[in-house]
Amino acid sequence: MRWIRYSLNNETNYGLLDENDRVTKINGSPLTEYELSTEKYQLSDLKLEVPIIPKTFYCVGLNYIAHIGAEGLSIPTRPEIGYRANNALIAHQEEVLMPADATAIQYEGELVVVIGKTVKNISRQEASQCIFGYTMGNDVSERNWQKQDRTFWRSKNSDTFKPMGPWIATDVALGEMQTTVAVNDVITTQFNTADMLFGIDEFISETSRYITLHAGDVIWMGTDGNSPNLQHNDRVDISLTGLGTLSNRFIKMTAE
Amino acid sequence: MRWIRYSLNNETNYGLLDENDRVTKINGSPLTEYELSTEKYQLSDLKLEVPIIPKTFYCVGLNYIAHIGAEGLSIPTRPEIGYRANNALIAHQEEVLMPADATAIQYEGELVVVIGKTVKNISRQEASQCIFGYTMGNDVSERNWQKQDRTFWRSKNSDTFKPMGPWIATDVALGEMQTTVAVNDVITTQFNTADMLFGIDEFISETSRYITLHAGDVIWMGTDGNSPNLQHNDRVDISLTGLGTLSNRFIKMTAE
Repeated sequence: MRWIRYSLNNETNYGLLDENDRVTKINGSPLTEYELSTEKYQLSDLKLEVPIIPKTFYCVGLNYIAHIGAEGLSIPTRPEIGYRANNALIAHQEEVLMPADATAIQYEGELVVVIGKTVKNISRQEASQCIFGYTMGNDVSERNWQKQDRTFWRSKNSDTFKPMGPWIATDVALGEMQTTVAVNDVITTQFNTADMLFGIDEFISETSRYITLHAGDVIWMGTDGNSPNLQHNDRVDISLTGLGTLSNRFIKMTAE
Repeated sequence: MRWIRYSLNNETNYGLLDENDRVTKINGSPLTEYELSTEKYQLSDLKLEVPIIPKTFYCVGLNYIAHIGAEGLSIPTRPEIGYRANNALIAHQEEVLMPADATAIQYEGELVVVIGKTVKNISRQEASQCIFGYTMGNDVSERNWQKQDRTFWRSKNSDTFKPMGPWIATDVALGEMQTTVAVNDVITTQFNTADMLFGIDEFISETSRYITLHAGDVIWMGTDGNSPNLQHNDRVDISLTGLGTLSNRFIKMTAE
């Protein structure tokens, strides 16, 4: 199943997306209880929204070998979760606004896990049971700020720096997924999504030793490879097998 | 005015707290629109809840000189905001659960700013206009994990590590506030709340250059001094002038 969150006439709802791009509105939430309504739409008539606003926004910083090398960092020995901030979330086809004083903005294409059940102390073997589905994220980063600043506040959490979407798919072939990133239709990064240092099950299980994961939380699973510095008007498309394409244009702001 | 968020008969609402500890339930939200209801309660008959669940949970790491020295860190030259996680929030009088493998759990008593209006690019002079009110936080920290881990995931964001409350006060004398922390009724830390390296206005203004602050966001303003390692059954009371007392007992979990 594919779930979208959309707006129409100033109202935001969830809908089920079928293979012909028809959307059936639901009443309720896909995470708790819902029923199908009789309202149906064409996908192209709807404004897509961020598929979920998490209670806590988790993100794995370093989880693929080539990316860690590119960042000049040491390889983690344990699955240690990190965080991003909700203010930065934008939807598929919304614009990433590059601050006027930003000089090195890069993409990071990531698989996103959406938690569906509240869990604590879950084993690696049982971890997948708390997963509702999967979507994609672009962990947009300003590399100079990332080096200069004490925290990731503006390097990774400036407004619009966290595109997520376009929808949540509940059934994917995790082991066979490719992550492909293209800038203006030219492929610039490609890697096997499964080549993670620590897998989804390991992160969920280890995190849940200390932290309750709640339905609606998201975990961004990290990225591989590296990115060029993006320019005004570049369009970045992130595609993962079975998840479609998350597409966002990058717009350079002018100083005020 | 003092606002409380409370539960009664499995329903959570906001109420206005008067000087006689009487609570008037409101319909709506203090941040948007509300009207007074005719329902009134005695404070002692209600279960206090975390006064607000933020969209983004901001926290200043290092903002008082003595605490920075105690942590062996260098003094920040700019107001750089950090983050904490919603899973860890608990209310006044709820228990902090110390994980069985934690060995150095300490308190940090902090003033908390509650944002009331959505703002971007706000000047230092205008920053106070977006503040709804103030409450208190205990930024509970495990010092060994804080040193060992790549992120603050378990050192500062383990479940129950972020007591916040007891309520939100809209009118305080910021310049004259004292922060007092007591363990089992013995005062262990005391400092002038206003002795911040960077003030509330500076943090709001600088953060808002890149980040939209939303109504309901909270900013924990950092702490001064240091804390003993807390023991099973210790009760930590954080008091700030005009804000009352945030009280939480610390309970050591046993290994499973």
